[in-house]
Amino acid sequence: MLDEAAKMLAQGRNFAALTTLFPDGRPQTQVMWVHADDDHVLINTEVHRAKFKNTSNDPRVTVTVMDAENPYHYVEVRGHVAEFVRGDEALENYQLLRQKYRSKNYSKAIEGERVILKIEVEQAIIH
Amino acid sequence: MLDEAAKMLAQGRNFAALTTLFPDGRPQTQVMWVHADDDHVLINTEVHRAKFKNTSNDPRVTVTVMDAENPYHYVEVRGHVAEFVRGDEALENYQLLRQKYRSKNYSKAIEGERVILKIEVEQAIIH
Repeated sequence: MLDEAAKMLAQGRNFAALTTLFPDGRPQTQVMWVHADDDHVLINTEVHRAKFKNTSNDPRVTVTVMDAENPYHYVEVRGHVAEFVRGDEALENYQLLRQKYRSKNYSKAIEGERVILKIEVEQAIIH
Repeated sequence: MLDEAAKMLAQGRNFAALTTLFPDGRPQTQVMWVHADDDHVLINTEVHRAKFKNTSNDPRVTVTVMDAENPYHYVEVRGHVAEFVRGDEALENYQLLRQKYRSKNYSKAIEGERVILKIEVEQAIIH
């Protein structure tokens, strides 16, 4: 089960810094939409992205979810990608995220095949 | 020289997600104050923190600086800690950061010896 405070931050309209690892161990960190079910933190990306390639190679990630109302309140989730979900479920999850975050600043069209990174939480550190 | 757009974001009153690597290669990612001089991105931390220990062991970091006004505008800096600066300069830099970020949400007292992580930028990716 996902920690309740982490779940609330990830289910809210907040942004996350997702870190994945390149094959040589270097990190990459990008700002992402985020969501959560009862057990996992969920990130939706595309199969041609480094985020997907990196986690296919080394599943270890951090997802740092920041309270949009207070930058001093955030959760750092340390864990690993336990499952990749493609197909209709990934596309539906992406449409749900578009509704959750609806913003005039975001205009990206669907470009590639969608994939959900289902992240199992090993540690959730609340700040 | 630091990329101009990256410098503006890091010099502004914006927050950064700093990623460092544990000895086993796992990442940690925390929300930090940030600043920049003409050549480096600057992070101020304390010598007893994992951030300092991690970068002493493996200098590779990312600093993802997010525009406080627009979450879709950020820079991902990939680089490495080129120098650690302790002593008076680190304390003065910390006082400068306290003035820059002045916030009622932040009340942390000075706890440990301050150190500046001077980060040399290898790549600055603007989103």
